[in-house]
Amino acid sequence: METMMRASVLTGPQTIELQERPVPEPGPDEALVRVGSVGVCGSDVHYYKDGRIGSMVVEGPLVLGHEVGGTIIAVGQAVDPTRVGERVALEPQRPCRRCRPCKTGHLNLCPNMEFFATPPIDGAFCDYVTLPADFAHPVPDSLSDAAVGLLEPLSVGIWANRKGGTVAGSRVFITGAGPIGAVAALSARAMGATDIIVSDPAESRRQRISELASARSVDPTAGFDPSEVEADVFLECSGATPALLDGLKALRPGGSAVMVGLGDEHVSLPLQDIAVREVTLTGIFRYVDTWPVAISLAAGGQVDLDALVTARFGLEDVEAALTSDSDPMSMKSVVVVNEDS
Amino acid sequence: METMMRASVLTGPQTIELQERPVPEPGPDEALVRVGSVGVCGSDVHYYKDGRIGSMVVEGPLVLGHEVGGTIIAVGQAVDPTRVGERVALEPQRPCRRCRPCKTGHLNLCPNMEFFATPPIDGAFCDYVTLPADFAHPVPDSLSDAAVGLLEPLSVGIWANRKGGTVAGSRVFITGAGPIGAVAALSARAMGATDIIVSDPAESRRQRISELASARSVDPTAGFDPSEVEADVFLECSGATPALLDGLKALRPGGSAVMVGLGDEHVSLPLQDIAVREVTLTGIFRYVDTWPVAISLAAGGQVDLDALVTARFGLEDVEAALTSDSDPMSMKSVVVVNEDS
Amino acid sequence: METMMRASVLTGPQTIELQERPVPEPGPDEALVRVGSVGVCGSDVHYYKDGRIGSMVVEGPLVLGHEVGGTIIAVGQAVDPTRVGERVALEPQRPCRRCRPCKTGHLNLCPNMEFFATPPIDGAFCDYVTLPADFAHPVPDSLSDAAVGLLEPLSVGIWANRKGGTVAGSRVFITGAGPIGAVAALSARAMGATDIIVSDPAESRRQRISELASARSVDPTAGFDPSEVEADVFLECSGATPALLDGLKALRPGGSAVMVGLGDEHVSLPLQDIAVREVTLTGIFRYVDTWPVAISLAAGGQVDLDALVTARFGLEDVEAALTSDSDPMSMKSVVVVNEDS
Amino acid sequence: METMMRASVLTGPQTIELQERPVPEPGPDEALVRVGSVGVCGSDVHYYKDGRIGSMVVEGPLVLGHEVGGTIIAVGQAVDPTRVGERVALEPQRPCRRCRPCKTGHLNLCPNMEFFATPPIDGAFCDYVTLPADFAHPVPDSLSDAAVGLLEPLSVGIWANRKGGTVAGSRVFITGAGPIGAVAALSARAMGATDIIVSDPAESRRQRISELASARSVDPTAGFDPSEVEADVFLECSGATPALLDGLKALRPGGSAVMVGLGDEHVSLPLQDIAVREVTLTGIFRYVDTWPVAISLAAGGQVDLDALVTARFGLEDVEAALTSDSDPMSMKSVVVVNEDS
Repeated sequence: METMMRASVLTGPQTIELQERPVPEPGPDEALVRVGSVGVCGSDVHYYKDGRIGSMVVEGPLVLGHEVGGTIIAVGQAVDPTRVGERVALEPQRPCRRCRPCKTGHLNLCPNMEFFATPPIDGAFCDYVTLPADFAHPVPDSLSDAAVGLLEPLSVGIWANRKGGTVAGSRVFITGAGPIGAVAALSARAMGATDIIVSDPAESRRQRISELASARSVDPTAGFDPSEVEADVFLECSGATPALLDGLKALRPGGSAVMVGLGDEHVSLPLQDIAVREVTLTGIFRYVDTWPVAISLAAGGQVDLDALVTARFGLEDVEAALTSDSDPMSMKSVVVVNEDS
Repeated sequence: METMMRASVLTGPQTIELQERPVPEPGPDEALVRVGSVGVCGSDVHYYKDGRIGSMVVEGPLVLGHEVGGTIIAVGQAVDPTRVGERVALEPQRPCRRCRPCKTGHLNLCPNMEFFATPPIDGAFCDYVTLPADFAHPVPDSLSDAAVGLLEPLSVGIWANRKGGTVAGSRVFITGAGPIGAVAALSARAMGATDIIVSDPAESRRQRISELASARSVDPTAGFDPSEVEADVFLECSGATPALLDGLKALRPGGSAVMVGLGDEHVSLPLQDIAVREVTLTGIFRYVDTWPVAISLAAGGQVDLDALVTARFGLEDVEAALTSDSDPMSMKSVVVVNEDS
Repeated sequence: METMMRASVLTGPQTIELQERPVPEPGPDEALVRVGSVGVCGSDVHYYKDGRIGSMVVEGPLVLGHEVGGTIIAVGQAVDPTRVGERVALEPQRPCRRCRPCKTGHLNLCPNMEFFATPPIDGAFCDYVTLPADFAHPVPDSLSDAAVGLLEPLSVGIWANRKGGTVAGSRVFITGAGPIGAVAALSARAMGATDIIVSDPAESRRQRISELASARSVDPTAGFDPSEVEADVFLECSGATPALLDGLKALRPGGSAVMVGLGDEHVSLPLQDIAVREVTLTGIFRYVDTWPVAISLAAGGQVDLDALVTARFGLEDVEAALTSDSDPMSMKSVVVVNEDS
Repeated sequence: METMMRASVLTGPQTIELQERPVPEPGPDEALVRVGSVGVCGSDVHYYKDGRIGSMVVEGPLVLGHEVGGTIIAVGQAVDPTRVGERVALEPQRPCRRCRPCKTGHLNLCPNMEFFATPPIDGAFCDYVTLPADFAHPVPDSLSDAAVGLLEPLSVGIWANRKGGTVAGSRVFITGAGPIGAVAALSARAMGATDIIVSDPAESRRQRISELASARSVDPTAGFDPSEVEADVFLECSGATPALLDGLKALRPGGSAVMVGLGDEHVSLPLQDIAVREVTLTGIFRYVDTWPVAISLAAGGQVDLDALVTARFGLEDVEAALTSDSDPMSMKSVVVVNEDS
């Protein structure tokens, strides 16, 4: 067993260094995981480019990456030792388990949460990570390493649709045909939505998402009247304020809007219209209990995560991976840490 | 049986005339009600002063008043004739019963709704009105005429708390200690809320609501830090934008905000904060199935509606009633149409 | 326009007569529908064979049939006249719209309900029927006449899964691989269930349902241990008491059991086990707001209703249709009333 | 600090011995509590008399008692040391926090649960106990020691009403006017139920519960027709099968029945009636997140727990306490372990 490992570290503004670090040791309830594949998330890009997301600020060296698949290579004393060798998807959160949110089904809102790649907690652009063993979810061999990592963004899509109340027969309106819009649409489809409409100004992206998720698509800049949509659920996945305003108009009375993409800090909203139509507006933050369903959907073929991957990089090229989203047709870049995890 | 009746009619901007009109005839499924008491609502005042509320514009003569108690004096052929003589509270809405919202428990969102005192539908500042018999709810003799009319604003309070998810043990934060804040607080208490905090800048109103609803009160202008409240539910009942912004801060993560008072058409909101704390924002529009519980609460003594009445007027003094809210200590003005309904 | 029509009438115990009857006239809010295809339901068979289902007793001539597709050929004065010519699926219920259940989203529990083919209300084994126009749901041309009729049993499957709480990722255990088990499984799949297990003693039926609904199947008579299933939802679709008892054991703690098939009037249940595992037991009766989603699922190809049809009969052969379920491999028999509806 | 303590131990069938035992030491996340008062529960009596409850069998010495109030006198290293001296109510469960039920808001269904006074886990008829510090809930000084212990049965009542869906305006039917019926009725009232009907054959008990909980009461043996009740919620608190059958009839269509009392292992139920009226039947097992609301209700005066206490015993008289329920007017016996906790 090695004692040192590679870690790709954000050491300063837009500066990534490949460093040597000690391999971490699993605590009693933890698993040590050899990292296979890690997807690149918009939040990684934000920390790399801006050094912060809202009130969360990078103040020291930070390992990014939280969309992780790998293999358990050791476990703590309180963990079933037969789990060594298991291929797993990592749920990258470590809630306290003792606060009221944790004990009532809202662990995503735990005030003591430690979350991968959120300052000052390190993420997974490195060879080995530890995590609570119950947050390492076993996956079938039929899923590729990249797909295992992308169960994390799929979880975001599932959680967004749960918050929005997507059910069989729902009409779901999605703004933004990037990676978040894609997992939102794929999740909506898997949850039984029978009409999914994605709005994006770029034709090439509209075309791609229509194929990926059996969605209709619309160009918001070309005479589109959102008030004719009458959606049950609206998932804002672009971060663009005009998209948010479109989506609110696109909802039927009593419909639900969910902010999934990170948008402007303050936005002027048509509150009287929201009130008299009893529209509901909320956002999402992490997720609760999404891996079991995400794994089932991916393993059962309802969702094809490999189709989302548009570029692959090695651990030595994390910086290139973090800037690869400048291509508007980029969907998901993946860092392959260990080929044969 | 009389054939003509008195009606207090809004005939132009800030102009009320007492007119003679024919007594209406009940349709097959309707009841004819002799009006006893009618509460004055902020929406009545808006139509009187501004001629509109948002997109709803007064374009012809309009009878105001929709908080109504009275007595059934005739019924249509499809209605149980023994109901004649019944004292009733009027649920002032006439949904189509055939649209999808009507058939799925959301009749308040019926696109074909005809609602009392909402242009061009007449209200109840008059001697007689008709309504669907199933929206005339029988009330016990123990309730005063005024209280019977005020079951309508109590219904608003109940619906607001239902939308907000108030349950036993909830902490509820309310902005605005006027009549809407009062029914919101009374309803919250009746639904089991164990901590109710009302914010209002006027000390006299704070004191009054503390007594009425066993609520704590705070002065938002005096060093109050809303982020320490950690409320489960926030009910905005003032229409003031600063109050709305306070309330959003006062919610715990995962809490619910409900806009009850009519505020500005557009408001700039802290959307990132709403999203990362998974706060939910919605509003209310009318109500569904609130009279049975409102009647039970008032009849059982859990809610004292008579305590809300601060002034009484005759039908010939509707204009005075509509301007009586200029007194900041005014809570509910009531128009006594027929003393002995 | 014809004035007389054919009607297949249950005139006595196990006696069906083809009679001439006047074509009904639509009321103001109604549509007159030329019947295309009518599926045969187990309840039709019960009324034919036993003259009753529980407390609902046939006491006079009765037209059976309530799984109906057809074409609107006339409408009442309050209905949009452009609907004439529309192909429609019939939701065979006529609630009062005025009781509390009707107004709160539970019209299936309306105490004044008139339901097709439930004594003394006639059904649709005849050329023409009337119904409230809002219960005649437009369908796309891509659906066959038989499929349009079978939206009714699909509605049963959808309602059963809604009651059971099936969501994306659910494991659903179904007992009985007949027509009700089939629509339950198809609905579960469409609502995102990722593991569906159907129990039936007949191998041929197990094989068929596995193909129809991508379900796993088990033989309850061959060493099957239900306690290993750990299902989220259990849908009893066989009417057999041993199946019900199996299914209760098959639920995880906190799981939900729904009685869909008609079983014994009284059954001895393991109540302590239900209590300490917080299992929930309920049943279903009709449905609310299922046609829109059923139509979407069938039109979108998520559910193939034509694959359920195992036999077709003419209106003159209703008796043969009603006895066709003696073949254990019978799934759905369909009465084709008018070829070209 | 003492090192030995008194413990009242069930050492054999209907045999209690007062023994000396070492004072336990708190683990890192635990609190050591000096026990003040412990209520006697029906389950304690079952273990004492029968040596078992269903599949849970006493196989060695067991300390009973799980309705506990006391004072923190020491804490583990991970616990805020300022908590020493805090008066607390004990939530007597120790879930694993790592299973799926624990992480999704259903910790009461944790398969690894260790629960006070449930074999082989000791309870609190002794001077000192340890528990996870987050399950020791701080209480205000206004609550008596006995009341603090009785927050546990109040939690049962709250959980029963939550499961049953009691809300403001509910009509709640309760069978059994003993201690469980009492906390069920008190909780229903606190959650806004406006009509509570308690059925019990003993007039003295009916009279007492009417006063305690502002409930109506009925004698089930005297011409009572349960089908006229039309309750929204039915809470079975007697364990008697005829009461359960009465209650099912007393529910309106769509109503909910909850088994709170421990009844017969198998009961023959009218399943067709349950199904066609869409009645829901479930039971309860422990509770989730009830102490905060129970404390609020007791501290705010909505629920008077002291009024439930009908007898007090010392730790040396646990056996007398366990047999005190032979008096039909016994409500709650309390063991005062340390007067001045």
